[in-house]
Amino acid sequence: MRFLEKLKLIQNENNSLLCIGLDTDVLKIPPSLQNSNNPQLEFNKRIIEVTSDFVCAYKLNLAFYESAGERGYETIHKTLECIPKEIITIADGKRGDIGNTAEQYAKIIFDDWKFDAATVNPYMGKDSVEPFIKNKNNCAFILALTSNPGSHDFQYLEVSGRPLYEHVVAKATSWNVKKNIGLVAGATHPEELKRIRAMVPEMPLLIPGIGTQKGDMEATVRNGCDKNGLLALINVSRGIIFASGGNDFAARARESAIKIQNEINVIRNNYFG
Amino acid sequence: MRFLEKLKLIQNENNSLLCIGLDTDVLKIPPSLQNSNNPQLEFNKRIIEVTSDFVCAYKLNLAFYESAGERGYETIHKTLECIPKEIITIADGKRGDIGNTAEQYAKIIFDDWKFDAATVNPYMGKDSVEPFIKNKNNCAFILALTSNPGSHDFQYLEVSGRPLYEHVVAKATSWNVKKNIGLVAGATHPEELKRIRAMVPEMPLLIPGIGTQKGDMEATVRNGCDKNGLLALINVSRGIIFASGGNDFAARARESAIKIQNEINVIRNNYFG
Repeated sequence: MRFLEKLKLIQNENNSLLCIGLDTDVLKIPPSLQNSNNPQLEFNKRIIEVTSDFVCAYKLNLAFYESAGERGYETIHKTLECIPKEIITIADGKRGDIGNTAEQYAKIIFDDWKFDAATVNPYMGKDSVEPFIKNKNNCAFILALTSNPGSHDFQYLEVSGRPLYEHVVAKATSWNVKKNIGLVAGATHPEELKRIRAMVPEMPLLIPGIGTQKGDMEATVRNGCDKNGLLALINVSRGIIFASGGNDFAARARESAIKIQNEINVIRNNYFG
Repeated sequence: MRFLEKLKLIQNENNSLLCIGLDTDVLKIPPSLQNSNNPQLEFNKRIIEVTSDFVCAYKLNLAFYESAGERGYETIHKTLECIPKEIITIADGKRGDIGNTAEQYAKIIFDDWKFDAATVNPYMGKDSVEPFIKNKNNCAFILALTSNPGSHDFQYLEVSGRPLYEHVVAKATSWNVKKNIGLVAGATHPEELKRIRAMVPEMPLLIPGIGTQKGDMEATVRNGCDKNGLLALINVSRGIIFASGGNDFAARARESAIKIQNEINVIRNNYFG
C-alpha cells in the first residue's frame, strides 16, 4: 500500500495524529524491567501494548538502539514485530550520505527492519535522498525546519529572499515524483509551520517538539494539518514514554497518550470540523 | 593526546596524508574469505595489515557495518583493535540530531568504539555538533562541501554573497574553541577547497572524492594541505580496498596504497618542499 494511503487510513481508523517517539534510553527504564532479558525491548512492548489504539505512528530514534550495542539491532527488529501492521513505523536516524552509502542505510531501514518511513538529512542533496524514495510504499521525511535551538544556525539563512528551509521544501517538492516524500517541521516554529503547510498542501509533516521541547499544541495542529485535519504526525517522545520514571510507566504512558490524542482532536474539531 | 597533535605525529611518522576508507561492502569481499567466520572483519584485518605503514588514518563507513546486521557492531570494535594505536580512526556516519540524541551517537562512537573522530552533518546546528567536540582528543569533521553530485543542491546556495558551505566553515570556526573541529571538503571541488583552506589555515580537512569519484589529485594536495604540507586527510576507499575483486585483494590494495601515497608525496614535495 502506498505510504500516504496507509497514513490516512490509520489516522482515520484510530482518530489520531499522535506519533509516539520510542527514544528508549536504557538509563531511564524503570526498575521492574531492569532484570529482564532485554529491558529496552520489554519496555517498548509494554508501551506499544497500552498505546497502539491511540496513535497513527511510532518513531524509533535509532541512536538509542545503536547505543545499546549489538543487541540494539535485534531490539529494533522485535519492537517492529510488536507494532500492529496498520500503524506507520518511522526510523528516525536522519541519515544522509553519497548514493552508494545511502543505499546501504535504506536497505537496513526498509528491507531488513521493514520500517515504512525514515527521516533524512537534506544537506548532501538529491543523490543522498534518492535511495529512500525508490519504493512508493516507503516515505522519506526530509528535515526542513527542525525543533532544536541549532535550527537557527543555518536553516533560516536567507537565500534569494527566502530562508534556506523553504528551499529545502521546494526541492523536496520537485523530487516528489512518487508522492512519497514528507517533511520534518518542528512544533517550536508554529508560524513557519504554517508557511510550510501552505507550500505543501498534500505532504505528510512529521512534527517533533511538543512536550519536553515546549512547542505550542494549538498552533501546531492548526498549522500542521492538511485541509482535512490530517497528514500531520505530531510526535511526542519523552513526554509519553517517560511520563513516569517508575513501575507505573505503562499506565502513565497510556494516560498521557490518551490525553494528548484528545487535546489534538479537540483542536482538530474546532478548526477542521 | 590532542587530536591535532596525534594527526601531525602520524602524518610525519608514516610520511602520509592517505586515509583509507573501509567501506567494506560484504558483497564485494573476495571468494577466499567468504567462508570465514566473519568475512567483513577478516577482510579489514588483511587490508590493515598490509597498508598500515602507508596511511595516516582509516575511516570506517558505518553504513556498511550497520547493514551487516547485529554483528556489525562487533566488527567495528574488532576492526579498531587491529589498527595501530598511533593511526587516526574516523567513524564516518554523518550523524546530526538534537542534543540528547547526538549525545547517544557520540557515546557509541567515542566511548564504546573509541574512534578518534567522527563525521557530522551541520544542518541542525550547534547543539547537534556539541556532543562530538566535548573532548579535546576527539575531532568532529563537519560536512562543508561534499564530493557528490547532490552537493550542488544546497551547499552552493548564495547567502549574503557567499555560498552556504562557507557559512558552515565560518560557524565551524566559531565553534572551534577546543581546536578539535575539522571539515569535510570534497576533492571534486578543487577551487572551493582552496578557498576553504584559506579560511581555516589550521584545521584538518578530510577530503573524499579521489578515485572512483574522480577528484583531481594534484589540485587536491596543493589546495587541501596547510602551509607545511600537512593536515589534509586524503581519503580513498573503493580505489584501494577493492583494487582487485579477487583473492589477490590484499597485495593489490597494498600496491594501490603505496602508489597513491607516493603520488601525494611527489606533489607535496613539489609544492611544500
